[in-house]
Amino acid sequence: MEKQSINPGRIHQALTSYQLAQALKGAIELELFTHVAAGAVTVDAIAPLCGGTQKGVRVLCDYLTVHGFLSKSGDSYALAPDTAALLDKRSPRYMGQVAGFFTHPVMVAKYNDVAALVRRGGAADHTLSPNEEMWVEFARSMAPMFDLPASIAAPLLVVPGTPARVLDVAAGHGLFGIHAALYNPAAMVTFQDWENVLEVTRENAGRLGVLDRSRFVPGSFFDVQLDTGFDVVLLPNFLHHFDFPTNLTLLKKVRMSLSSAGRVAIIEFVPNEDRVSPPDGALFAMRMLGTTPSGDAYTLQEIDAMLREAGFGPSQVHSLAPAPQQLIIASPW
Amino acid sequence: MEKQSINPGRIHQALTSYQLAQALKGAIELELFTHVAAGAVTVDAIAPLCGGTQKGVRVLCDYLTVHGFLSKSGDSYALAPDTAALLDKRSPRYMGQVAGFFTHPVMVAKYNDVAALVRRGGAADHTLSPNEEMWVEFARSMAPMFDLPASIAAPLLVVPGTPARVLDVAAGHGLFGIHAALYNPAAMVTFQDWENVLEVTRENAGRLGVLDRSRFVPGSFFDVQLDTGFDVVLLPNFLHHFDFPTNLTLLKKVRMSLSSAGRVAIIEFVPNEDRVSPPDGALFAMRMLGTTPSGDAYTLQEIDAMLREAGFGPSQVHSLAPAPQQLIIASPW
Repeated sequence: MEKQSINPGRIHQALTSYQLAQALKGAIELELFTHVAAGAVTVDAIAPLCGGTQKGVRVLCDYLTVHGFLSKSGDSYALAPDTAALLDKRSPRYMGQVAGFFTHPVMVAKYNDVAALVRRGGAADHTLSPNEEMWVEFARSMAPMFDLPASIAAPLLVVPGTPARVLDVAAGHGLFGIHAALYNPAAMVTFQDWENVLEVTRENAGRLGVLDRSRFVPGSFFDVQLDTGFDVVLLPNFLHHFDFPTNLTLLKKVRMSLSSAGRVAIIEFVPNEDRVSPPDGALFAMRMLGTTPSGDAYTLQEIDAMLREAGFGPSQVHSLAPAPQQLIIASPW
Repeated sequence: MEKQSINPGRIHQALTSYQLAQALKGAIELELFTHVAAGAVTVDAIAPLCGGTQKGVRVLCDYLTVHGFLSKSGDSYALAPDTAALLDKRSPRYMGQVAGFFTHPVMVAKYNDVAALVRRGGAADHTLSPNEEMWVEFARSMAPMFDLPASIAAPLLVVPGTPARVLDVAAGHGLFGIHAALYNPAAMVTFQDWENVLEVTRENAGRLGVLDRSRFVPGSFFDVQLDTGFDVVLLPNFLHHFDFPTNLTLLKKVRMSLSSAGRVAIIEFVPNEDRVSPPDGALFAMRMLGTTPSGDAYTLQEIDAMLREAGFGPSQVHSLAPAPQQLIIASPW
């Protein structure tokens, strides 16, 4: 009889959850949250502003209310706190652009056959092939997501006024290196990434006023010839793309490029040792299963083991909260 | 400063929630829940049973744990109550087949451009064209979802041993009519649907032993010639496909086919008047926005208004809990 009380609703919702991804993307495209923030809080008021039908706007707003991105009182909608901070276009922390990457048809299609991913232990195709166009899209659309952790990390890595040579590995948008340069006007930053991605890095460095202290090294990190004597080598969201042995090779190359008192700064989504908390870190393993042949979300123990085997000393861990990533710092042994 | 405490995690998760739909589908395909129910509760034990890699199984199990479909204690996984009742293949209420319909590429693609759905107020293409193959898929794979509400509805509609003529409109799997026949051995049921869908209805009627009391009327409900004098006309999950005027036409045709003491029995996902609760009813409006040109999830007030305008008297409402649908019964005025 206990089983009779079981409602299949949660399973329906999960199996149709692609609707949530697309509904949120659609709302961002329609600038729905921006209109609500500006005071258009009823279907009647919102519909003409986004060129929507009354019915369409009503269904979308109600749907987003059930999912907690809006609240509803009578006929009026209001923004949830995270929606207001992150999805109102006039907010300084607006990150609506990330929808373009997360719901890109190429990214969505990677999950069409999860059973095959499980059998294979990863993706068949490697999104990390040289000059992959998707990483230009990533660098462009995901930048707003990294502004916050990069601004929190910078003071933990450089000291204002103290000359520092910083290397930003697989820099992408370049925000970690850029924020180090912004925080420390005496820092010089070398950005490494594929040529096509570095165009985005260069744009961002220019836009944020640090281009005169920037150098650019095009090519795969595994192939490029690096300078030595860096004070800080940034590895933002890079280790998760590779398996343990590849990360060892990578970290040994990083160690060779560091000064003896230099520090590697790893920024990662890190699950706890139970691998099912916190959500952001734990869910990231599925992101890697679907998009890389052998990447993973590594625990602190695993990252520490890689660092030690690559010749680094004990590591320090810093939360970058409220950003979901963690910062792990270590120096050559 | 308040905004500084905002974590973007929930927005990331929503924008990647297609991973949840596909991960759950993948787990069902791999019979993961069945293996766990049978006692294989660690990655080591599960992996060989589903032909998965250790890494792939670990990532999938952890992902499903974060989403509450499994729980984890040390290295051991266990099934959540609804997962055990509904996704273990040996459970009498197993409904894993529904994944095939919910995540069918045709259904998923309907949400690729939600902004366009909002501007249009519905889907551009009508999945309801005659003999649409998708409805055969629906009738086959969604049947497990309707066994429960149909078995709860039957005693509210027929009396065992009392002769009754039942019409099941757009019958699909036919479970509502079949359960009426199972509950009342004196009931005769007429099933109407497209010819290709009726093959599935016929199979189910045969499998469940009511074929000798079944008749079949192929064609669109709007076109077919109907008998009169029915005691019960079932409208299971049908009104939501159409707009108010179309439903009026439909209900008037139903009224003409009923005996004077006959009853129409509407089974629907019904949102409350606030349209944002309960979740199953409220979220259903998005299902209709994406898959029909002018369908909707109707409130009780709206259904009552349709019934009255079509010549029916006051309606009675019955919950079919724990199934998420409601049953609305009315007789000609």
